[in-house]
Amino acid sequence: MDILAEANRLKALGTPVVSMAVGQPSDPAPDRVREAAAAALKAGRIGYTDALGLADLLKAISVPAARIAVTTGSSAAFNLAFLAMFDAGDRVAIAAPGYPAYRNIMGALGLDVVEIELDGDAYLHAEHLRQAHAEKPLKGVLFASPANPTGAVVPAGDLKTLVETARELGIAVISDEIYHRLAYGAPDVTALAFDEDVAVINSFSKYYCMTGWRIGWMVLPERLVRPVERIAQSLYISAPELSQVAAIEAFNATDELETVKARYAWNRELLAQRLPELGFSFAAPMDGAFYAFCDVSRLTNDSMEFARRMLAEAHVAATPGRDFDTLAGHRYMRFSYAGSHDDMVEAMNRIERWLR
Amino acid sequence: MDILAEANRLKALGTPVVSMAVGQPSDPAPDRVREAAAAALKAGRIGYTDALGLADLLKAISVPAARIAVTTGSSAAFNLAFLAMFDAGDRVAIAAPGYPAYRNIMGALGLDVVEIELDGDAYLHAEHLRQAHAEKPLKGVLFASPANPTGAVVPAGDLKTLVETARELGIAVISDEIYHRLAYGAPDVTALAFDEDVAVINSFSKYYCMTGWRIGWMVLPERLVRPVERIAQSLYISAPELSQVAAIEAFNATDELETVKARYAWNRELLAQRLPELGFSFAAPMDGAFYAFCDVSRLTNDSMEFARRMLAEAHVAATPGRDFDTLAGHRYMRFSYAGSHDDMVEAMNRIERWLR
Repeated sequence: MDILAEANRLKALGTPVVSMAVGQPSDPAPDRVREAAAAALKAGRIGYTDALGLADLLKAISVPAARIAVTTGSSAAFNLAFLAMFDAGDRVAIAAPGYPAYRNIMGALGLDVVEIELDGDAYLHAEHLRQAHAEKPLKGVLFASPANPTGAVVPAGDLKTLVETARELGIAVISDEIYHRLAYGAPDVTALAFDEDVAVINSFSKYYCMTGWRIGWMVLPERLVRPVERIAQSLYISAPELSQVAAIEAFNATDELETVKARYAWNRELLAQRLPELGFSFAAPMDGAFYAFCDVSRLTNDSMEFARRMLAEAHVAATPGRDFDTLAGHRYMRFSYAGSHDDMVEAMNRIERWLR
Repeated sequence: MDILAEANRLKALGTPVVSMAVGQPSDPAPDRVREAAAAALKAGRIGYTDALGLADLLKAISVPAARIAVTTGSSAAFNLAFLAMFDAGDRVAIAAPGYPAYRNIMGALGLDVVEIELDGDAYLHAEHLRQAHAEKPLKGVLFASPANPTGAVVPAGDLKTLVETARELGIAVISDEIYHRLAYGAPDVTALAFDEDVAVINSFSKYYCMTGWRIGWMVLPERLVRPVERIAQSLYISAPELSQVAAIEAFNATDELETVKARYAWNRELLAQRLPELGFSFAAPMDGAFYAFCDVSRLTNDSMEFARRMLAEAHVAATPGRDFDTLAGHRYMRFSYAGSHDDMVEAMNRIERWLR
């Protein structure tokens, strides 16, 4: 947040900052999504919907509609899943590094967050889970693939073993798949392929370029649908109706969205070459999402200070690792490559000049 | 929720149900609000904003911008206020009858909800607060004016005494003012008029006809702004940007909105005459919002069953009181008069025929 605020302050002063700090596409939502929203605006009232979402949107999401909850972004989905599945004091495991809001939301709800340090591994393995569970039993586990901040994609075989191990140990699974469809090698696989009894969290924010629309969805085990509906009714009433109407069209915009994804792939090629040349080495193979998570210990021992200086002197904003990993984050930085290709080229050149 | 679902089921079958069950305006957002949204849709990307909201919207809300948090509807504001102000186990008082989500959100967060039965009083008085606090100390109190479901407006003098009493007793105050500007006698007064150290929750949903846009705001004591910002960043990221852009125009649409309000006033006149004729007596003077909360004990001892039958046989949907008041709610029903005047006339006629 501090780096973002400083980047915005500099931009407001006219400094031409290149931002690789924000986890959102630089493209607008697809044309037909915005056209659908415009038509709904003309048509009339935008009101509350059923707590679980508009029937037409539930239908458009290609899983049994009765197991879906449309949510106000994945932010709401996380909160609802935690509330419906866990009680205060329950031990729930996440990987470090990971999306900081996991830890913060769980903390706000009084859950006992168990951070499993990946310590060089690209993603959470079944063995990590067994070990943490053996130390003290876990009630749940949350993992992401493709992952923020590493861009790691869990291969199908390992995901299967992870999900099956959780089931064997009686650990409830939440699979964060908000970067689905953003894998650059083998396609990312949903945890639902291996077990119906998991909660899968998804979003229109990333692949579908709809961050500010605040719209996502969750696929739930049947027994959790009604509890989630009740909590959602009180905590959110419903997701924004206009965003729901528009999101129906997102599934028909694959051509436009694949063009955007192709640019991410191009940016990724560039960073895969340039970042190591500049002294940044990858913490994971960056197979998905739009992030490079880099070990910067050859350049600094304090990535927060390094990020501040890089912003102030090279005018490139990137995210220090501490938020993603309280223990080892001072050695890492996250670069988002969801921006334009020109910006990526410019950012790499600026960092090169600055480091010289 | 059950009555709403049944009403929707009947409507889908072609039954001409008149709904007085939903707490939302039947009018769309003002023209210029929708035009602002349409322009933003054309202009490009709709992204995350600062957690506390767009600077232009903060400026448009006429209190010091540094004390405002723009929220994803008042739903988010309640959740954020509870999280920032209270800890699990804290005793927080609300009035019964009251908006059911208060109780449900507090319950989800592990707060100890103290329901103060109004028992014939139209609204919460300082004396209620003193009494509840004397039984066992309270950490906070939440009250609404104009209120859902009663439509009661707390007169300025009583509000002043209530706020001052809370301060004297060291009880934190949350003032729900989401029905502000919807008072039909003396204008409603904000709790901020009597104390700067209260949290005031407001919304674009009701007076401004923007329910489904999910946009509201909170005015906070300075010391709470940063904690709310942090929690909001994790729990919501930001309110929907399109709704924020559009809401800026809401303050310039007073002419259009006063016309809508004039229709509510006309509906209110009708109900003030017709409901008592039909055997429904008012639990409060219905001075504000767009609700009539009626004692139905002359007609039934079970308002839930009564509501079901009225819907099935007279095709008029209204809300049974149990959700608003677990103890005495079986004797009450809430009628929303935010619909068209013709619908109100028709509903009264149908109920009259049905009761005969």
